[in-house]
Amino acid sequence: MFRRMVVAGVGLTGGSLALAARKFGLVDEIVGYGRGEKNLRLARRNGVIDRYFMDEGGVPKGVDLLILATPVQSIAPLAKSFLPRLAPSCLVSDVGSVKANVVHQVERVLARRAFFVGAHPIAGGEKWGAQSAKSDLFIGHRCILTPTRHTNPKALRKMTAFWRRLGSRVELMDPRVHDRILALVSHLPHVLVYSLVNSLREARVDSLDLKEYCAGGFKDFTRIASSRPEIWRDICLVNPQAITKGIVDYVKRLEKVKRWIRDGRGDLLEREFQRANEFRGAIP
Amino acid sequence: MFRRMVVAGVGLTGGSLALAARKFGLVDEIVGYGRGEKNLRLARRNGVIDRYFMDEGGVPKGVDLLILATPVQSIAPLAKSFLPRLAPSCLVSDVGSVKANVVHQVERVLARRAFFVGAHPIAGGEKWGAQSAKSDLFIGHRCILTPTRHTNPKALRKMTAFWRRLGSRVELMDPRVHDRILALVSHLPHVLVYSLVNSLREARVDSLDLKEYCAGGFKDFTRIASSRPEIWRDICLVNPQAITKGIVDYVKRLEKVKRWIRDGRGDLLEREFQRANEFRGAIP
Repeated sequence: MFRRMVVAGVGLTGGSLALAARKFGLVDEIVGYGRGEKNLRLARRNGVIDRYFMDEGGVPKGVDLLILATPVQSIAPLAKSFLPRLAPSCLVSDVGSVKANVVHQVERVLARRAFFVGAHPIAGGEKWGAQSAKSDLFIGHRCILTPTRHTNPKALRKMTAFWRRLGSRVELMDPRVHDRILALVSHLPHVLVYSLVNSLREARVDSLDLKEYCAGGFKDFTRIASSRPEIWRDICLVNPQAITKGIVDYVKRLEKVKRWIRDGRGDLLEREFQRANEFRGAIP
Repeated sequence: MFRRMVVAGVGLTGGSLALAARKFGLVDEIVGYGRGEKNLRLARRNGVIDRYFMDEGGVPKGVDLLILATPVQSIAPLAKSFLPRLAPSCLVSDVGSVKANVVHQVERVLARRAFFVGAHPIAGGEKWGAQSAKSDLFIGHRCILTPTRHTNPKALRKMTAFWRRLGSRVELMDPRVHDRILALVSHLPHVLVYSLVNSLREARVDSLDLKEYCAGGFKDFTRIASSRPEIWRDICLVNPQAITKGIVDYVKRLEKVKRWIRDGRGDLLEREFQRANEFRGAIP
């Protein structure tokens, strides 16, 4: 499908994309870009990439697919710095967890000089770096593509085919709708968990080490707090409206539950927990 | 160690206690008590209990260990209704996730007519019922015993030995300290997750089914919302002060993070997430 793919950001998602594209025979050569040479060397040693460059001006010639897989605030600036060395037929895509702002910025940067299709594969985990890449990461998971009125239909068809061949279930969606959904199912949960872990970190009960009392439930619950801080900082900064609205709604609900606990409203608490229980049980 | 143990509430914890006590040869006979006959029949069929009774007045003779493993609001009332048929030498204990209130109530009910030692094994999960019982549930996990000035020292020694032989690491703790710790590491997280799941349940984004977009992180995060609603209703009602204080502190932190997101304070967000990340990584 592609001759030469550049993956900027060879972490869990970018690295897995590289491994999968190679495994399924979709690219001839994969070139990594990043700032951390240790990670790039590891990626090359593990066969994730064939070679790498670290200078933004060092984009090789003949690139026909550029995947921007860095934290979301870096996507548009990177697109801008790579652009002068991209062929006009080059396809550009990303894997960012925020779309409206990113798509808007990248489209403005690339204008009509390269084809852009925003993408967000809903697959991942709390692990980081090229060592966590795996070729089956996307299999059976959704990949949301967020075309706009500026998107080239042929480029969209090609990216759809690409993600399908990586094993994803491709869905097209408006970038703003994507951001509202992801704020609720992913961004808000991360913020809540980081905050809970910090509440516990700062709590003092006698002089006991509270970490010692965290059982399996807590560890499941807080696993996502192991995610990379820069990624989530960027997501918060780039999708602030939907996330802060999520926090406001959530705090209202917590205040209600707090009143029920204070007033001993067992009936309402049980109904609240029961409903959550049923909804959770229905998640595929 | 014991001739005849009654386990009231043959669920995950009570059932596992029964299986483990039998496996390690600590009891000769195990009698179940509960309200749901289907669960009791299953427990008997699976060898969790030898027989059962469902009438509060039907406590068999010769019981030397009574374990109250029901939702926490039922513990003291059950102790009261079982008391007339208990021998004065009978040891009574529980496995409740709230201690101060429960221990106080049960001590008042039993007065000097039976020996009580409050206990809370920090092990469990979101599964329910006798079918989820397993004999190794407690191995390597803490069991907190909460003696008071009313506790008989010999009874405390015997319960300590009992839990150790089930594989637990026994720790003695003041009941109020226990409740403050558990509010932070267990009760509050459950309330937060139930609330988040309900926020999502009520959210509307176009007419999409938001459940479809929940990835692995969300499922890990919300696994504890599968826990049994009655159990968590009771815990909230019996430990309201520590839990509502936890909610208040948590909401303050969320409000702060919300301001940082709104004001684009990437530096503070990254530091907040980084600290949570480090603390989470240090949980044993």
